[in-house]
Amino acid sequence: MSTPLPDRLRQRYLRTKRQPVSQSIPGFALEILAEDRVGLMADVMNLVSSFKLSADFIQSWSDFDDRVHMLIQVREAAGGDEIIEAVQKIKSVEHVQLRPTNLRTYGKRVIVLGGGAQVAAVASGAIVEADRHNIRGELISVDTIAVVGEAEIAQAVRAVGRLHRAGILVLAGALMGGEITEAVTELREMYGIPVVALKMAGSVREVADLVVTDPTEAGVMAVMLLSNIGKFDLLRVHGQEF
Amino acid sequence: MSTPLPDRLRQRYLRTKRQPVSQSIPGFALEILAEDRVGLMADVMNLVSSFKLSADFIQSWSDFDDRVHMLIQVREAAGGDEIIEAVQKIKSVEHVQLRPTNLRTYGKRVIVLGGGAQVAAVASGAIVEADRHNIRGELISVDTIAVVGEAEIAQAVRAVGRLHRAGILVLAGALMGGEITEAVTELREMYGIPVVALKMAGSVREVADLVVTDPTEAGVMAVMLLSNIGKFDLLRVHGQEF
Repeated sequence: MSTPLPDRLRQRYLRTKRQPVSQSIPGFALEILAEDRVGLMADVMNLVSSFKLSADFIQSWSDFDDRVHMLIQVREAAGGDEIIEAVQKIKSVEHVQLRPTNLRTYGKRVIVLGGGAQVAAVASGAIVEADRHNIRGELISVDTIAVVGEAEIAQAVRAVGRLHRAGILVLAGALMGGEITEAVTELREMYGIPVVALKMAGSVREVADLVVTDPTEAGVMAVMLLSNIGKFDLLRVHGQEF
Repeated sequence: MSTPLPDRLRQRYLRTKRQPVSQSIPGFALEILAEDRVGLMADVMNLVSSFKLSADFIQSWSDFDDRVHMLIQVREAAGGDEIIEAVQKIKSVEHVQLRPTNLRTYGKRVIVLGGGAQVAAVASGAIVEADRHNIRGELISVDTIAVVGEAEIAQAVRAVGRLHRAGILVLAGALMGGEITEAVTELREMYGIPVVALKMAGSVREVADLVVTDPTEAGVMAVMLLSNIGKFDLLRVHGQEF
């Protein structure tokens, strides 16, 4: 394995690793339920700006009853109730609440993809290790998908680049190559997300940042790599096999 | 256990259960990387409307290098390259791509929350069962967080209501009550998300939809409850203990 370390990956990894994520980080979220209408998002965002708040995450989706559900996360500390009152006055808004941000609730994310048996083993290691970190005040969560087929796995790998707070991907399988290998290269170069692969058949381990034989250890290492407290550092162990 | 079934939960559950989610569902996403500026979101949304597309999920966030990363998911089938070309002409947009939606990539979500040992056991059952469904063409993923403390667990439970595509929550622990029980009631009544609890100490199982003793089985059942192919139906088994 002699995969180079893309600049983008190095920068993003260092930023993720150094970020102390706990219940005490600043920022809050506005959760809004509203009847949909043209200009609603613009009205909400104008109001947020008028309070001199900078939104670094916005999500808006149709709820199952066709109302609009919005989440606006800002970096600043929560102020008084003035913003709630102001949002409530926006036309068609039905319900507003101050909420903790997703980063403060679920933290950095380890993503595990692949075949069920191995995803379950990696996830188990990652969850138990994340528990140890979270008990010490960090916030790391573990998200998984068991997926079958080269094209489908490649699609799921590429989509990790669009997951908010994703810190690292673990590929759990017995054979991965072809289009999956291309997707891993794209994820590392375009989004800067590091990839750990189990020791498996196929070309994917040639382009991964780390190859780990035991699935429990792969899960544990993935969490350690994201931890702000832990000393384990991808830039030191990059390219190695365990 | 004699928890009533809120109307909202019944409606949302039926909609989730009946939704066939696979690689063949219509809809596509626009992924955009841009330099941030006032009015960017409005320009993008106006363009989407001018193509007669209806966005049912919008996400916009600051990337690690302070560029804006946007994901606009629409319900309609993907058209030609005209929309790509049109978005590329919007001021400050650097990169645009057509992508599959998150629903088509990761599907419906089972969320598992609680203590590490039990979260790992529930997740393992859920992942292996999701694998069986995904092999038959469904899409179900399993997301977890190991979290410690009554207030922190309650916060994580409430936040499930703000997770896109969340279908069901499994509480994996040995003691949950107090504020967690209030959060479960809020999640079920306000958001309509069903809750499975392990058989444990504390009041939480009195307000859960289903109580399951074995953690592997709890994970398996949670997946079966979301499956469009499977016959297992929450409205039939609601209030039971296994």
